[in-house]
Amino acid sequence: MNDCTFIIFGASGDLFKRKLFPSLYALIVQKKVSNFALIGAAFDETDMKTLIEHSREFIKEDIDEKIWQQINNCAYYQQLDFNNKDSYLSFKVRIEAIEKKQKLSGNRMFYLAAAADFFCIITECLAISGVAQKKNTQEAPWHRLVYEKPFGHDLASAQAINSCIKKYFNEVQIYRIDHYLTKEIVGNIALVRFTNCVFEPLWNNRYIDNVQIVLSESIGIENRGAYYDRYGAVCDVVQNHMLELIALIAMEAPQMLTGEYVREQRAQVLKKVSVVDGIYGQYDGYLQEAHVNSQSMTETFAAIMLHINNHRWSGVPFYLKTGKYLKKKETHITIKFKQVDCLLKVCPRDSNYLTISIDPESGFSLTLNVKKPGIAQEVMPVNMDFCHSCLFESFPPEAYEVLLDDIIRGEHSVSVRFDEIEDTWTVVDEIRRKQFSLYTYQKEADGPKELEDFNKKHGVRWLL
Amino acid sequence: MNDCTFIIFGASGDLFKRKLFPSLYALIVQKKVSNFALIGAAFDETDMKTLIEHSREFIKEDIDEKIWQQINNCAYYQQLDFNNKDSYLSFKVRIEAIEKKQKLSGNRMFYLAAAADFFCIITECLAISGVAQKKNTQEAPWHRLVYEKPFGHDLASAQAINSCIKKYFNEVQIYRIDHYLTKEIVGNIALVRFTNCVFEPLWNNRYIDNVQIVLSESIGIENRGAYYDRYGAVCDVVQNHMLELIALIAMEAPQMLTGEYVREQRAQVLKKVSVVDGIYGQYDGYLQEAHVNSQSMTETFAAIMLHINNHRWSGVPFYLKTGKYLKKKETHITIKFKQVDCLLKVCPRDSNYLTISIDPESGFSLTLNVKKPGIAQEVMPVNMDFCHSCLFESFPPEAYEVLLDDIIRGEHSVSVRFDEIEDTWTVVDEIRRKQFSLYTYQKEADGPKELEDFNKKHGVRWLL
Repeated sequence: MNDCTFIIFGASGDLFKRKLFPSLYALIVQKKVSNFALIGAAFDETDMKTLIEHSREFIKEDIDEKIWQQINNCAYYQQLDFNNKDSYLSFKVRIEAIEKKQKLSGNRMFYLAAAADFFCIITECLAISGVAQKKNTQEAPWHRLVYEKPFGHDLASAQAINSCIKKYFNEVQIYRIDHYLTKEIVGNIALVRFTNCVFEPLWNNRYIDNVQIVLSESIGIENRGAYYDRYGAVCDVVQNHMLELIALIAMEAPQMLTGEYVREQRAQVLKKVSVVDGIYGQYDGYLQEAHVNSQSMTETFAAIMLHINNHRWSGVPFYLKTGKYLKKKETHITIKFKQVDCLLKVCPRDSNYLTISIDPESGFSLTLNVKKPGIAQEVMPVNMDFCHSCLFESFPPEAYEVLLDDIIRGEHSVSVRFDEIEDTWTVVDEIRRKQFSLYTYQKEADGPKELEDFNKKHGVRWLL
Repeated sequence: MNDCTFIIFGASGDLFKRKLFPSLYALIVQKKVSNFALIGAAFDETDMKTLIEHSREFIKEDIDEKIWQQINNCAYYQQLDFNNKDSYLSFKVRIEAIEKKQKLSGNRMFYLAAAADFFCIITECLAISGVAQKKNTQEAPWHRLVYEKPFGHDLASAQAINSCIKKYFNEVQIYRIDHYLTKEIVGNIALVRFTNCVFEPLWNNRYIDNVQIVLSESIGIENRGAYYDRYGAVCDVVQNHMLELIALIAMEAPQMLTGEYVREQRAQVLKKVSVVDGIYGQYDGYLQEAHVNSQSMTETFAAIMLHINNHRWSGVPFYLKTGKYLKKKETHITIKFKQVDCLLKVCPRDSNYLTISIDPESGFSLTLNVKKPGIAQEVMPVNMDFCHSCLFESFPPEAYEVLLDDIIRGEHSVSVRFDEIEDTWTVVDEIRRKQFSLYTYQKEADGPKELEDFNKKHGVRWLL
């Protein structure tokens, strides 16, 4: 039986309200968790019933009030100063009492939905107090620690957290979260690459011209000014989501398509990334946002050109583009294939490309040349589409739902290994060192108009 | 201006009524022929107005009576004994008079919609009488000779016709018709192969497991007993349509994707075909059909396994299957790719395949493995589709419409070169020599039940 004590650090925060609790609720409704206790911990003076109630509006399906009540009966709140080592001792006593009362076997998931500055102290306190114990195996009762992004703010801080973790726990107990890795369509990337004979032979610099990864948002920073102004677009989405997508696209074939093998290959390829060039943007009005420094140079837009220095990818540019307040909300990867020798009098306008759409629709689309109807020797581009989201009877499971389920089952492929996260920060530090120019752009534009110069300089043609 | 005198041998036959006249009508409506005369020639005592009128029911669109009248004004009938050399002399005088009256420049298309037994004598008489003149160029006024299928009944008879043609005309004037080659989707095969980087690198025995070509008909031989019983399925569709499809699938890249280059590559690959095995069927009730020998051993069904003996295709079986009175009417080509190394605990059920559908729908479909929704490490097959017929605003042009238009424009890629046709007959003669066993099958079956043994013996799994 999958029983579990969920211990959420930062339970009074946005993540718990919007994502964690709704996902937990879904897992309980689907009986993916048999028996459980939910223990929220935070600085605030509040109670669990209130926190859970705030989550109600973020649950898509009709709420089963009986289950809601059942959850409330198993929910506890612990007011906790994360920095106060002593307070963990009484917390330990309370957790044990709750587990006894709820007849739980002692599987514990510690979810650190807190700022990265607290990761080390929480980790240390959990270990010293004995709330979480170092274990060598995945066997029950297991203790697993989950670290929400961002995992530090540069390589040094990530390394500091990692050494703190290493001191007290085994890597097998650790889940560094990138919820992008739990998206169905992202999970699909490696499966599609390695289970189809028609893609893998083409997946190299002989046939691929360039790779484009775009993560555009139509919204601004909303009420996250304090967080965002410290991190910026590069730390907010490039370091984690976009570099992980690159790793999945570019990695070598793992021995098996499971947890540790996939993580190993992702880590290997990230070590080969080098930064070529980039350009930053900041949307007009950003400096007036709440909790933003009025002279801030934080980027809300970034276009970056990377190389991967190995045999497979030598000479193939990887282009990243991301931003807030852009024209469209969309996330996709485009694999642009090379042009073939032209055997026609009227040559094809374009070569093939494979688009992996992630948001808002998810699916694959292959752009091919076919005969122009009624004309003997001309082709036109058409799409062969596969809509992944259409496969689901209703909506696909939320990323956090899959993530919690994976952690309960001890599946590691959706989490990021210690060296993998350090490798991504190494790339980010290299990006930072290059100090790309920052330009203002209008909301609902495609980014700063200076992007055109960047495109011209590198011969970039954004496909979508 | 594309003016043309159409001279149709066998104008009282089915082909003129069902295909040639409706296509001619369409070309005239679309103003693809500016000025013209239509001269029908046959043994029968009839007139052109009557023959044209019989065609009315085979025209899909609403008839423009003004154009209908205009055609009647330019239509002439010549009663002609094809074997009587002298009669061609008066025919010549008449053609010249008609061209003068209709102010035509003397471009002449001679369409031999007659039995192959007459091909040689008609060719000879046209030449000797001077009705058709030997020309070295495609320049106007051009004289072009069109030979409807079947072009002979074996290699020897095809060679005899070819030497007759060669004696009097240049190959540039000659069109040996396979109307399959004019189908939009068939024309698409070479274009799709050679203008898309994602296919050509995979198009060989390293990645392709086998190729299947299926041409199933749900109808019987209808009122063609005399013809069909002499020819059978192998001559009726394998010699021409199916071997031409194989040539298009298997040929090497031509220098350019135009007429002579494509024909050269088709011819080259046909010379490498060898016959491995086969099985015949005859539908229950065939022996009772009108004009069929009551002890006939003619096949109405054939499944044949071929090899292509070159570097690209060594070890890749090509399977053909065709028949009358089968369960479904469908024509398609399936390229089955090889299985990849399995990196999953639950291996993919099947490898990829590309299906080129020709009839009744036309299009491409690529069967891929994608992630099973909600399950981390399993895949399921899905289709990425492209519907070619959907590109047309209304219905695609009839094969014969494209064909006549191509001949007027002097485009040769849709016609079959003298050696190409001899190569296909060489394959057919090899098939005949092997004397495959003939089994009876029930109407609306998938063929004789003994096909199972053939499949088992060679490990064939028909995909569609």
